[in-house]
Amino acid sequence: MRAVDLIVKKREGGALSREELDFLIGGYVRGEIPDYQMASLAMAVFFRGMSFAETGSLTRAMIESGETLDLSGLPTPLVDKHSTGGVGDKVSLILAPLAAACGCVVPMMSGRALGHTGGTLDKLESIPGYRTDLDLARFREVLRGCGFAMTGQSERIVPADRLLYALRDVTGTVESIPLITASIMSKKFAEGAEALVFDVKCGTGAFMKTPGDARALAVSLVRTGASLGRKVRAVLSDMDQPLGRMVGNFLEVRETIDCLQGRGPGDLRELTLRLTAHMLVMGGIRPDLSTAEELCRQRLADGSAWSRFLKNAELQGGRTDVLLDPVKGPRAPVISPLRAAASGFLQRLDAYRIGLASGLLGASRARKEDAVLPAAGIELLRSVGEEVRAGEEICLLHAPERRRLEEALEQLKDAVVVGGEPPPPRRLVLEEIAGDALAED
Amino acid sequence: MRAVDLIVKKREGGALSREELDFLIGGYVRGEIPDYQMASLAMAVFFRGMSFAETGSLTRAMIESGETLDLSGLPTPLVDKHSTGGVGDKVSLILAPLAAACGCVVPMMSGRALGHTGGTLDKLESIPGYRTDLDLARFREVLRGCGFAMTGQSERIVPADRLLYALRDVTGTVESIPLITASIMSKKFAEGAEALVFDVKCGTGAFMKTPGDARALAVSLVRTGASLGRKVRAVLSDMDQPLGRMVGNFLEVRETIDCLQGRGPGDLRELTLRLTAHMLVMGGIRPDLSTAEELCRQRLADGSAWSRFLKNAELQGGRTDVLLDPVKGPRAPVISPLRAAASGFLQRLDAYRIGLASGLLGASRARKEDAVLPAAGIELLRSVGEEVRAGEEICLLHAPERRRLEEALEQLKDAVVVGGEPPPPRRLVLEEIAGDALAED
Repeated sequence: MRAVDLIVKKREGGALSREELDFLIGGYVRGEIPDYQMASLAMAVFFRGMSFAETGSLTRAMIESGETLDLSGLPTPLVDKHSTGGVGDKVSLILAPLAAACGCVVPMMSGRALGHTGGTLDKLESIPGYRTDLDLARFREVLRGCGFAMTGQSERIVPADRLLYALRDVTGTVESIPLITASIMSKKFAEGAEALVFDVKCGTGAFMKTPGDARALAVSLVRTGASLGRKVRAVLSDMDQPLGRMVGNFLEVRETIDCLQGRGPGDLRELTLRLTAHMLVMGGIRPDLSTAEELCRQRLADGSAWSRFLKNAELQGGRTDVLLDPVKGPRAPVISPLRAAASGFLQRLDAYRIGLASGLLGASRARKEDAVLPAAGIELLRSVGEEVRAGEEICLLHAPERRRLEEALEQLKDAVVVGGEPPPPRRLVLEEIAGDALAED
Repeated sequence: MRAVDLIVKKREGGALSREELDFLIGGYVRGEIPDYQMASLAMAVFFRGMSFAETGSLTRAMIESGETLDLSGLPTPLVDKHSTGGVGDKVSLILAPLAAACGCVVPMMSGRALGHTGGTLDKLESIPGYRTDLDLARFREVLRGCGFAMTGQSERIVPADRLLYALRDVTGTVESIPLITASIMSKKFAEGAEALVFDVKCGTGAFMKTPGDARALAVSLVRTGASLGRKVRAVLSDMDQPLGRMVGNFLEVRETIDCLQGRGPGDLRELTLRLTAHMLVMGGIRPDLSTAEELCRQRLADGSAWSRFLKNAELQGGRTDVLLDPVKGPRAPVISPLRAAASGFLQRLDAYRIGLASGLLGASRARKEDAVLPAAGIELLRSVGEEVRAGEEICLLHAPERRRLEEALEQLKDAVVVGGEPPPPRRLVLEEIAGDALAED
């Protein structure tokens, strides 16, 4: 087998076999196939696409390029969730203890904030003492102790993805649905989950800007999962405006606590319940979404999800006194409002720009080596659709210093739109896609 | 400017500007842009193509990546020909002295045999003593002395093409019309020609297998040349069967001598006259093709083309006594016929397979580092369309040893087709494309 012949095969629209993809990915990770061949192959895949079975073979080849997490012997069902990334998306922090309280085991490996999106690890680490660098033994202990565990990704898992992702980033081949699918899916399945629900975000604050692109990714994830014999579902959700009212690491932890205590904003609760319900159905804990959601509501109401969260924090080294009394947590020295420039209806709170502004305040990174500030971020006081008056506070900026505040305010200028008409009502969950339904078409 | 942004621009169908192409090609040659970015760009160009103006800018950037030949002070017009490569294609050896005898100056830089096609340098070097490694001073002297000179390509000319060609070869990006155009054109114009005629071969023995592909390349060459303000024409010619009757280095020199002495096969003479006539018209020596062809026929008939050839050989170190009496030249130890397996009409002499067989006999190279044998090759005794009887000799194989003969005979099995019907008549020149005509559409 020669790499160049396989590149030409894909270039001409052919489907690569499992053996051919093993040869390419294995050879790439071993350094036998050079970057330049993988780059031209990636560009050919961008133009020609891949079938779902082919994407499945690519995913499998990527999983087999490294180690996989052995979670055997743990209670089941092992179910996980993955979000394609958004602004104010603290769903994982609520969903994991909630699913655990309902009987799932949730082995969650997460990433860090980069660009305009937040990262679950950074949010968790804003809890003083909380450790996200668990080794496998400790990861298993925590899972056994509270039903969920949150840690960073192991370097030994899916090395092909790290290499390929870095290459795609500099060769203009990021925006390929099959390559995105294999990248996401290989990591999640290498981490030991048996079933997966994907929260595919759609809108200005998401990686996929249009419903069409988001749907294509969701379908690819679900059907590729099916081709691998895995239970996979996807929920398409709106990311034109931030989820909930808090954007920034410890600000989002505070909102997580509100939610787990039965308060918190409606959109955040609604989406979290829906995603968790899909996990319960896939895990066989409830037969359908409505009974599953009912169980979730109970576990929120009776405080069992909240106590799972506290138990997890204890097991991962976090200070539970801070969680029980968040005013003890990190707090920004400068808190300053952004006020409405005009009177009218709040038509838009642009998720992308709010994410960027929050990043400028210190909640995210411009480069991988930057540090994040736990207390930095943006607290939204008003919601899209509400009537506001000129001069009223729209949001509060939590900043480490005045200079950063100015930059963030500049970025927010176009993020907040006030107009004469109320905006059309917003749908949070755009579509839900399950493997069984798709298998029929 | 960032390479990745330009890759994405091309990927999305945009046209790269002259500055952007200078940045990419210059950066690549300086080692600032890595192979993997150039590879994904090349694949994006494969899918998206390039406008003729864009291909012109790419050509210019490639020319400027290295030195150009300074032929100023020489007599004019400086006119050259380039063939996309075929089997039995010894046109350059006849056309150069003929055009020189008609008043052109022909600065010809050629390549070597590789794969199934022959190389002009290898043919010339089969003349004992003939040197193809002229330095610039000697190249100018020979041009001044006999009106044409034949040499290998300088390493300092168009370094971008050597790098890019090697990269395309292993990344599945060879078959891109704009990249092929820029590769061919940059070299020819860096070598000092003012006007160029291209012989774009079409058929099994050519790089372009179909008339559609060949025409697309011819149009691209002519229009890209026009965008650079150069006189460029293209002739599409048949390469389903070898040109002339001789395939192999010194065998082709013998056929060249026949042609220059007014004999030789009709197809070879017809194509050579036509290509030379285009050079005379572009060079302003004759106003139209018919008067130009007339001048060519005179210069062949009066022996002046033949004496130019002898003069050139003398200036480049070749033994003229061998040219005057070719039986003194190299001769293969084994000469063996291939006989017709059945009676009927000779329907096909497949150029590709005959080229491969000639290569197996030693006339070409499997790898760049191999040596070629001057006497090896194939001598066709019968032509397509003729009636043959089972057992009659179709061609003679000139081999260095028995073992190679067997391999070549095996390869020739399917190259010679005898059938019950005479084949449809063959057109040698399929189309002629001139820049002025195209400029109108």
